[in-house]
Amino acid sequence: MASAVALDAKSIVLDAPLPLDSGQELPGVRLAYESYGELNADKSNAILVFHALTGDQYVASSHPITGKPGWWDRMVGPGKPIDTARYHVICANVVGGCMGSTGPASAGPDGAPYAMRFPVITIRDMVRAQVALLDALGIGRLHAVVGGSMGGMQALSFAANFPGRADRVLAIATTARHSAQNIAFHEVGRQAVMADPEWQGGDYYGKGKGPEKGLSVARMAAHITYLSEEGLTEKFGRRLQDREAKSFGFDADFQVESYLRYQGIAFTDRFDANAYLYITRAMDYLDLAEEHGGRLADAFARSDARFCLVSFDTDWLYPTAESRHVVHALNAVAAPVSFVELSAPYGHDSFLLNVPALDRVVKGFIE
Amino acid sequence: MASAVALDAKSIVLDAPLPLDSGQELPGVRLAYESYGELNADKSNAILVFHALTGDQYVASSHPITGKPGWWDRMVGPGKPIDTARYHVICANVVGGCMGSTGPASAGPDGAPYAMRFPVITIRDMVRAQVALLDALGIGRLHAVVGGSMGGMQALSFAANFPGRADRVLAIATTARHSAQNIAFHEVGRQAVMADPEWQGGDYYGKGKGPEKGLSVARMAAHITYLSEEGLTEKFGRRLQDREAKSFGFDADFQVESYLRYQGIAFTDRFDANAYLYITRAMDYLDLAEEHGGRLADAFARSDARFCLVSFDTDWLYPTAESRHVVHALNAVAAPVSFVELSAPYGHDSFLLNVPALDRVVKGFIE
Repeated sequence: MASAVALDAKSIVLDAPLPLDSGQELPGVRLAYESYGELNADKSNAILVFHALTGDQYVASSHPITGKPGWWDRMVGPGKPIDTARYHVICANVVGGCMGSTGPASAGPDGAPYAMRFPVITIRDMVRAQVALLDALGIGRLHAVVGGSMGGMQALSFAANFPGRADRVLAIATTARHSAQNIAFHEVGRQAVMADPEWQGGDYYGKGKGPEKGLSVARMAAHITYLSEEGLTEKFGRRLQDREAKSFGFDADFQVESYLRYQGIAFTDRFDANAYLYITRAMDYLDLAEEHGGRLADAFARSDARFCLVSFDTDWLYPTAESRHVVHALNAVAAPVSFVELSAPYGHDSFLLNVPALDRVVKGFIE
Repeated sequence: MASAVALDAKSIVLDAPLPLDSGQELPGVRLAYESYGELNADKSNAILVFHALTGDQYVASSHPITGKPGWWDRMVGPGKPIDTARYHVICANVVGGCMGSTGPASAGPDGAPYAMRFPVITIRDMVRAQVALLDALGIGRLHAVVGGSMGGMQALSFAANFPGRADRVLAIATTARHSAQNIAFHEVGRQAVMADPEWQGGDYYGKGKGPEKGLSVARMAAHITYLSEEGLTEKFGRRLQDREAKSFGFDADFQVESYLRYQGIAFTDRFDANAYLYITRAMDYLDLAEEHGGRLADAFARSDARFCLVSFDTDWLYPTAESRHVVHALNAVAAPVSFVELSAPYGHDSFLLNVPALDRVVKGFIE
């Protein structure tokens, strides 16, 4: 499924094995990426956008499976806040993903899919792979790195681990470490996938439909965390779906049930279940402070970038306190940082949705 | 499993079929209950305690399967806030349950388990059954009805639908209607159960182990909603389970993962998956206002009870705003009501845990 896409997409294969935080190495890593806008002569106008858990490289171009517009089409393009008439924008599928970059569905050295033989990766491993991509493209220092949610984690990890490689770091709706509640929700999703007998210990490639039901349940649970209680109430409330009265049965009586079921099923068409396991695990492992001796400020001590942190008041997945925690660490090392909590009704998903105030913040910071 | 327990427990079988909100009737309803303390001569000292979603009648006596103390042992007993030296306390397993009362695991008229032939029930149906129990016991007017979470929903439904049957109504950590987010989380749980092939369309009785994996995932997801983010952080943070370093695998590295997995698996030993479907459905259907012409105040217009509402500041499942919504409705009909938001770190589960302030509120209101 996913590997077929890589053939049509831009991709490179890294020359050297990718060293991983686990101590292992991953040979022959392919990174699939998209780019938009012209790279200028001195290669100083490049912006690297990092995608979120279930995102991909199609930040501003239509998705090859769903046909939907790019996931940040509203933010990236000519004349848009990240203006591709001025900047060269790169977005790569993360290692461990399923849209063309090397992941658990890819063939291992023996030709068979890695499945659960794929090494457990971290956010820093994802970033390391993308720095190798920049090296391959001859881009030394970026105009900016930008990301929301897991993309923001990568932006912060990039700043901490590759100082001097970006002028600006924009991290939206994110955190420098996964909380117990974050881990708990991911663990529910993983258990839902692994409870599905079609998962077959991860060896489902070419053997049946895969753990679609389990992955669908995982997506449903995750989706609730992306939305605010207020947003759900406004969007659905207790309204019934295509009926006048309750059915006194187990059909999707309520619109919110129907919506969630659809979100769950649609997700399985475009995402590999093992990739979901690996990427959620990478997020759970994130603790930037722990990586840098236990003190978050030390993670940013060598950075020379300007930072901008954005949170949303209704985001309960990575609430404002998590951004503030990062801001305090940046303050402690006198790093230039601006921080804003925006008001938006959509919860965590606000970073992907119509929030004009975010457009203005992004545009102002990038320019 | 569950039906064996009923033989040793107190139970009655209702003479008349139980009329249900769906329009159906349920014949031969058995209600299993426990009682504590002496009923006085004029039967004026009875308190009915309603249990929560996964609770049961063993409010203050050890659970016959787990051997654990009663779920509200700290609150109910001689000299305790609900003092069984003074009051006769009754707690019945809800209809639709699996601890001896008639539910989906019970034999239908044809002798086979109802399974999904069991009618969909509502919170009002649960209350109606317990009023029939009171009638059978000759108890006209209760000293109080008391409940937390789904127990609180029953207490409010009792007040609304059976005015004149209780002097006091104490509803803790609850709501008068299930929100879109509440429904969404329950739907995830139901889908997890129904995605498990061992569910077999509900006909798993005597045919294998039942949907243990699906029910376990459902319980894990629900459990997160019972705890506060702060509580999880305090209890687990990012601490590892029985290891010095991350395993770079999919074992339960983090304590919170190990805890959730245990909670999920332990639950399947004592709870019937179909009962979980039916009881969550009943909760999702709750909308006391809708039942009473669309205006919540009208639900309480005929009540002559005194009310007490208690919420917890860290409860994000049924947050304080939901209790306040009920209080405003009671104010609108000039019903006597006291309301307190207690500070406790445990989230929704605070009503079951060591919160001395709750003990004082309960004791003060009951006396």
